[in-house]
This record gives sequence, C-alpha cells and structure tokens, in this order.
Amino acid sequence: MSTVGQVIKCKAAVAWEAGKPLSIEEIEVAPPQKHEVRVKILFTSLCHTDVYFWEAKGQNPLFPRIFGHEAGGIVESVGEGVTDLQPGDHVLPIFTGECKECPHCLSEESNMCDLLRINTERGGMINDGKPRFSKDGKPIHHFLGTSTFSEYTVLHVGQVAKINPEAPLDKVCVLSCGMSTGFGATVNVAKPKKGQSVAIFGLGAVGLAAAEGARVCGASRIIGIDLNPNRFEEAKKFGCTEFVNPKDHNKPVQEVIAEMTGGGVDRSVECTGSIQAMISAFECVHDGWGVAVLVGVPNKDDAFQTHPAKFLNERTLKGTFFGNYKPRSDIPGVVEKYMKKELELDKFITHSVPFPEINKAFEYMLAGEGLRCVVRMDA
Amino acid sequence: MSTVGQVIKCKAAVAWEAGKPLSIEEIEVAPPQKHEVRVKILFTSLCHTDVYFWEAKGQNPLFPRIFGHEAGGIVESVGEGVTDLQPGDHVLPIFTGECKECPHCLSEESNMCDLLRINTERGGMINDGKPRFSKDGKPIHHFLGTSTFSEYTVLHVGQVAKINPEAPLDKVCVLSCGMSTGFGATVNVAKPKKGQSVAIFGLGAVGLAAAEGARVCGASRIIGIDLNPNRFEEAKKFGCTEFVNPKDHNKPVQEVIAEMTGGGVDRSVECTGSIQAMISAFECVHDGWGVAVLVGVPNKDDAFQTHPAKFLNERTLKGTFFGNYKPRSDIPGVVEKYMKKELELDKFITHSVPFPEINKAFEYMLAGEGLRCVVRMDA
Ligand SMILES: NC(=O)c1ccc[n+]([C@@H]2O[C@H](COP(=O)([O-])OP(=O)(O)OC[C@H]3O[C@@H](n4cnc5c(N)ncnc54)[C@H](O)[C@@H]3O)[C@@H](O)[C@H]2O)c1
Ligand SMILES: NC(=O)c1ccc[n+]([C@@H]2O[C@H](COP(=O)([O-])OP(=O)(O)OC[C@H]3O[C@@H](n4cnc5c(N)ncnc54)[C@H](O)[C@@H]3O)[C@@H](O)[C@H]2O)c1
Ligand SMILES: [Zn+2]
Ligand SMILES: [Zn+2]
Ligand SMILES: [Zn+2]
Ligand SMILES: [Zn+2]
Repeated sequence: MSTVGQVIKCKAAVAWEAGKPLSIEEIEVAPPQKHEVRVKILFTSLCHTDVYFWEAKGQNPLFPRIFGHEAGGIVESVGEGVTDLQPGDHVLPIFTGECKECPHCLSEESNMCDLLRINTERGGMINDGKPRFSKDGKPIHHFLGTSTFSEYTVLHVGQVAKINPEAPLDKVCVLSCGMSTGFGATVNVAKPKKGQSVAIFGLGAVGLAAAEGARVCGASRIIGIDLNPNRFEEAKKFGCTEFVNPKDHNKPVQEVIAEMTGGGVDRSVECTGSIQAMISAFECVHDGWGVAVLVGVPNKDDAFQTHPAKFLNERTLKGTFFGNYKPRSDIPGVVEKYMKKELELDKFITHSVPFPEINKAFEYMLAGEGLRCVVRMDA
Repeated sequence: MSTVGQVIKCKAAVAWEAGKPLSIEEIEVAPPQKHEVRVKILFTSLCHTDVYFWEAKGQNPLFPRIFGHEAGGIVESVGEGVTDLQPGDHVLPIFTGECKECPHCLSEESNMCDLLRINTERGGMINDGKPRFSKDGKPIHHFLGTSTFSEYTVLHVGQVAKINPEAPLDKVCVLSCGMSTGFGATVNVAKPKKGQSVAIFGLGAVGLAAAEGARVCGASRIIGIDLNPNRFEEAKKFGCTEFVNPKDHNKPVQEVIAEMTGGGVDRSVECTGSIQAMISAFECVHDGWGVAVLVGVPNKDDAFQTHPAKFLNERTLKGTFFGNYKPRSDIPGVVEKYMKKELELDKFITHSVPFPEINKAFEYMLAGEGLRCVVRMDA
C-alpha cells in the first residue's frame, strides 16, 4: 500500500527538553509539499552540532525538536515541482543546501546558497515556515532542515544529494557533514601539493578527515596538533606522521612548528573552534607560499588578531564551510571516491547502535570516545 | 677609452644628513666584484620609500647614503661569474632580488628570495659588506642594493632585470617598484575575473597601478576609496568608476561598500599602509568568493583584527610583496606588456626634472603633487 500523499506514522527520537535523553516516540510525518522530498532514513550518525544544539547552552531553545543531520536514506515520495529525484533514489541529506539559482550557487567558488544556507534557528520548512512533524497533532520542530533521527523525514529538495545506489549507506552517511567538511578543507581549499607538509590543528573527526585529505593529496609530512595527547595514537591511523601538544612547550606552537619545518609548514588546517589555534594555524605557515584554512566554528565574541606583516610576507588565510563542497553537485563525486577506494571512511566509524539505543551515541560523544557512532534505524 | 675594471668618477646625489636636500657631488664608483654589475643610470624616479628612509624618522639613520630604487639604465661592466648580462644590456634595477637558487626562488609561488629579499638596513654589498661608493676615499652607503641617484651604480646581479632594449627607459623605469607592485597585486594576486567588481583602498601611485590592473582584467566596477578627495579626479583617468570617502559616512566604509554592491565587492586591494583600511578592505569583500589583498606597509605595532566568522564565510585574505613578481624572471614580461600597449605607464609620470634639480622631485612628493617625477640623469 503506497504511502504517497499520506501522513506516515513512524518512530522518531524526540528531544523534549534541552540536555534530556531523547525519547523514541510514534510521530506523524506529513507528505512533502512543493519542492520537498520525503526520505526514509536507514542510517544516521551523531555530530557535535547535534549535541551542541541539544544542550542549547546560551541559545534560544527550540523544543520539542528532532535532531540529526548526518544520514543516508531512500526517497519515499516527492512533492510538486521536484523533477530530479524520484522514489527509490539513494540520498544523503545535507544540513546546507544548493538551490542552483542564487548568485552563490551560480558562482563556481561558493557553496553558501542564499536560500538554503545553514540556519540553526529555523524549526519549520522554508515553504510555509511550518514543521512536517507532529505528535498527536502538536508540532515538533525540525533541525537544520534535515532531522534525521526519525524513520521518515521531509527535506527541501535543495538539501538532498542523490548518490550511487550501490554505495553502502551505513558508511557513506558520515559524508553528510563532518568527513566532507574536513576532507574538503584540505583537498578543495588548502590544496597541498604532492610532497608538501601539512599541519592539522585539532584531531577530532573533522581534523582527522582533513588529515585523510592530506594523505590523499600526497603530503610528505602531516603534523597533528592537539591539547589532548589521547588523540595522537588514533591519529596515526589517519596518516599523521608527527605530533605536537602545545602544552609541552613554553613557546607558541607556531614557533615550534616553524623550527620543525625550516620556517613553517606549506599548508595548515584548523579544526578546533579555538581562536588561539586559528591564530597559530595562520602564523605557522611558511612565508612566500603558505596557506592556512580555518574550519572550526569560533565563539561569538572571538577576535582573530595577528600582525599584518604576516600577510605581506605572502601568507594566505581562508575559511571554508562544508569543505567548499556544493552539496548536490559535488557530494555524489565524493561518494564515488569512496567507492573507488581513493578515500577511506570505515576508520571513522568507531561505534554502531540500534535506533532504540540512540542515547548511547550521545554518551560516547560526551565522553570523547571514538569518532562516529552510526545509528541503525531498521535495527 | 674603456672604463671596465676602473674606478669611475661620476656625479651622484648624496644624502649627507636625514631630511636635508641631496647634494650633487663627484664620487668614485668601484668596479663590480663577483656576481655584481655596474650600471649607467639614465632615468630614475622617486618613490615614497626613498623619502621615508631619507627622513629617517624612528630608524637607525645610515648616512651619507645614495638613495633611489626606481630606474632604468645600461650595463657598463660585469664582475666575475656574471654570465647572463653583458655590457650594453638595458636593465631595470630592482630593490628586491632573485638568486634563482633558494627555496623561494625555486617555488613557483614566492618572490621573497632568501638571499636578496629587501633589506633597508644594509649599506654595503652582500659580497663583502662594503660600499662601492666613496668620495675622497670615504665610503658612502648604498640603499636597497640599488642607489640609483647616481650616474653609475653597482648592484648584485640578482637585482638586475634585463629588458627589451627598445623599451623607452624614461617610461619603463617606473616598473622598478611602485607600478609593478600595484599592478601585480591585482593581476597576480587578487585576479579579478572579467565583469567583477574591485575596490581599491588608497589612490596613490600604487593604488592607481592596482586600478590599472583591474582595468586590464576587465573589471566592471572599480571603486576607489581614499580619505583625500583630491585624489578622485585624477583616479578617473585610471579607470575608477566610483568613489567613496570614508569621512563622508557615519558607518564603517566596509558597510557602505557592501550596500553599494549587494553584499560586497568581488575583490579588494589595499594600498594605504593604514591598518584601518586593511581591516575594511578585508571585511568589504563578498562572502563565498571574495578575495582581499594587502599591499600597504603597516606600522610595527599595528594589529590586524577581525571576527573569524568572516573567514569561515569563505573570504580569502592575502598579502603581496612587489606584486608577487619575480624580478628577473617576470619584470621583462611586464615591460613587454607596456610595449604591446596592454598596460599604460605614461599617465603615471606627471613630472620630469634634470638631475641637478632632483630635490624638486622630493618637494613634489612631500606636497602630494602628481604621481611620479622622472629624473633625467643625462640632462
Ligand atoms: N565549517 C564547517 O562547515 C564545520 C562543519 C562541522 C564541524 N565544524 C567545526 O569543526 C571543529 C572540529 O569539529 P570536531 O567534530 O572534529 O570537534 P572535536 O571536539 O571532536 O575535536 C576538536 C579537537 O580540537 C582540540 N583542540 C581544542 N583546542 C585546541 C587548541 N587550542 N590547540 C590544539 N587542539 C585543540 C580538542 O582537544 C579536540 O581534540 C568544530 O569547531 C566544529 O564546530 C565546522
Ligand atoms: N608591498 C610592496 O611591495 C610595496 C611596494 C611599494 C609601496 N608599498 C606600500 O604601498 C602603500 C601605498 O604607496 P603609495 O606610494 O601609493 O602611497 P601614497 O601615500 O601616495 O598613497 C596612499 C593613499 O592612501 C590614502 N589613505 C591613507 N589612509 C587611508 C584610509 N584609512 N582609507 C582610505 N585611504 C587612505 C592616502 O590618502 C593616500 O592617498 C604604502 O604603504 C607603501 O609603503 C608596498
Ligand atoms: Zn542557492
Ligand atoms: Zn555536523
Ligand atoms: Zn633566491
Ligand atoms: Zn619604491
């Protein structure tokens, strides 16, 4: 019996209150409207951003809400005007979209779509501002336009990347956010040449994906920098060849790196969110040709400060958002890279739990255990 | 009668004391040593950097000294080991060199030669630390390794660009410093695409050369920003299509520019030396693809400060030195551009004086009159 055009009743992990365990509930998911797509989620993983907005510290809390934005699924039905997707397509939901019409989407360089750029405060759909989720008639808010902690979810078509149906969704789901962000920061933005040296600040999932990018580019030295020495052992699997803990030195870490490398690294990628690491990542690149890339999300009141002569000596500083990938145009190609074994993903997936145990994924992340926990919706 | 291997007696404009008019003296110029070249200067122009070190405010004063670094001349003789230049070659002396052997010279991206990078404090030759200039046996210091306010000067071969002998030296001499710096900042570093908008901060000679670069790249809008409204009329000749004086607005100039351009310019080039202009130049570029380039030389204690989210929104900030040109490899090609009328130089030359009146060139510059004053050595 077709569900097309019908409200679907299914299970979702609802966050009723900030910081309280999610509860699995039966909810209603309305049919997709104009330019919307309803997707059956098969696998979803947990990212820091989910935890951050679930904790809702210093934010306008928006509850009840269904979190989740790294996932893989299959299109169940499409709304009016959706022509490039159809039921059965394998897809990755993406937290930032691509309308294909605005100046950013038309620019070769930008992926910051005017219409569908990440919006953490929106709880409804763009079309009518309303949620498609409800329980007993009461609305439940969306998160990032994705809300993948649900068996079914509704997304704007611009936030849905159609991928190779042969790709294993339990692996490529992690490309929805963190892995693409770090990998793209290196391969699309820092662009180290074969044989160059790369410093990676922050060895969380994003930083390790940046290290994976450096490995794929053929970097000769990949220097991992973290305040937490527990990260170093794991980082070896991701191609890091040397480690520096800023706490082990009584001079700025950028000076330590300059001494290790005869004046500075060729490229650096900052994946911490710490303003101090951002400044160090810039100042540790070699004059004449060094490029530093910022990925971490800073605090609202942070100020980036450096001496302008560091720029005049021909250093470049750039930031990136989602690894400069355009979600619909580029992510299918990243999935292909995985299929061709040019990019490794399995090593990022350290845990897996069935949907009813989704709160365990939160516990692993809060304890700093592992990198990605994949939640199996069907299990 | 050949002068090769002989001390040459000739006229030079000697600065005996900080801030005092130069005096034309008969001096001795020793023959070039290993890797050195002796050049007969035919034309030289005055740049701010000469005036700055002649005024010697807040510096270690180094006098007597022969200033001058923008010039054109002809090789008189070469020292041991010089193989790619010979007497009669037409050349431009350059204040920063290219040894062709160090990591910077070997890198495609850098022009900041380890051996011959600009050094404002050195008063002698690299070879033996001694000057080749003297008067009555007493040494006179060099400046930037060029000292072109002399009928003959001695340079390290790495600071000599061999150019097309058909190029008029009274015009292309200005490519030795300021014009190449501004022009290169736009065409080599900011690289606007045809039809894009460019903001130029500072409409002195360097900024107008940057505007010339924007014109050559096919920019659709060239917005000139200066605190001095007298600069605007002249800037029209250099392709500037709009003008903004930060003093005319009661909000930051970056906001004014963002409003004029629907979110920001595609490229900006800062040619002021003011830290406030550097910050504005960065913050006025469009998110997603904007590139800002710093050219101006800041004060020692300046701090560049901005919110890191401006980077994360995919803006790029770079600095450049001498327009990223490698002096020996690239400047001959810029001269060719002038020969092919792809680049205009004549409009930069607003004054000309015979050598005995060189102090007038200082007066024009101190009064802010015109752009470049060419000094005719033979006149
Ligand atoms: N720009 C984007 O599109 C995007 C997308 C996803 C995540 N992010 C950001 O990327 C950053 C990293 O994400 P993650 O999930 O890997 O986080 P994580 O917390 O797992 O890892 C961050 C690591 O940085 C280390 N660190 C913190 N301060 C440091 C310092 N001063 N010097 C060295 N190391 C330091 C921590 O010890 C930790 O190991 C976060 O700021 C996140 O918000 C950005
Ligand atoms: N990087 C290099 O290789 C290189 C080479 C030569 C010159 N320079 C530097 O380039 C800069 C420009 O040189 P120039 O000879 O054209 O100088 P200039 O003094 O002739 O012109 C500078 C202009 O900037 C304007 N200005 C100053 N502060 C401003 C502000 N806050 N906003 C807007 N406009 C402002 C001034 O009114 C002036 O018109 C200098 O800092 C110089 O040292 C750099
Ligand atoms: Zn768009
Ligand atoms: Zn995420
Ligand atoms: Zn060199
Ligand atoms: Zn100069």
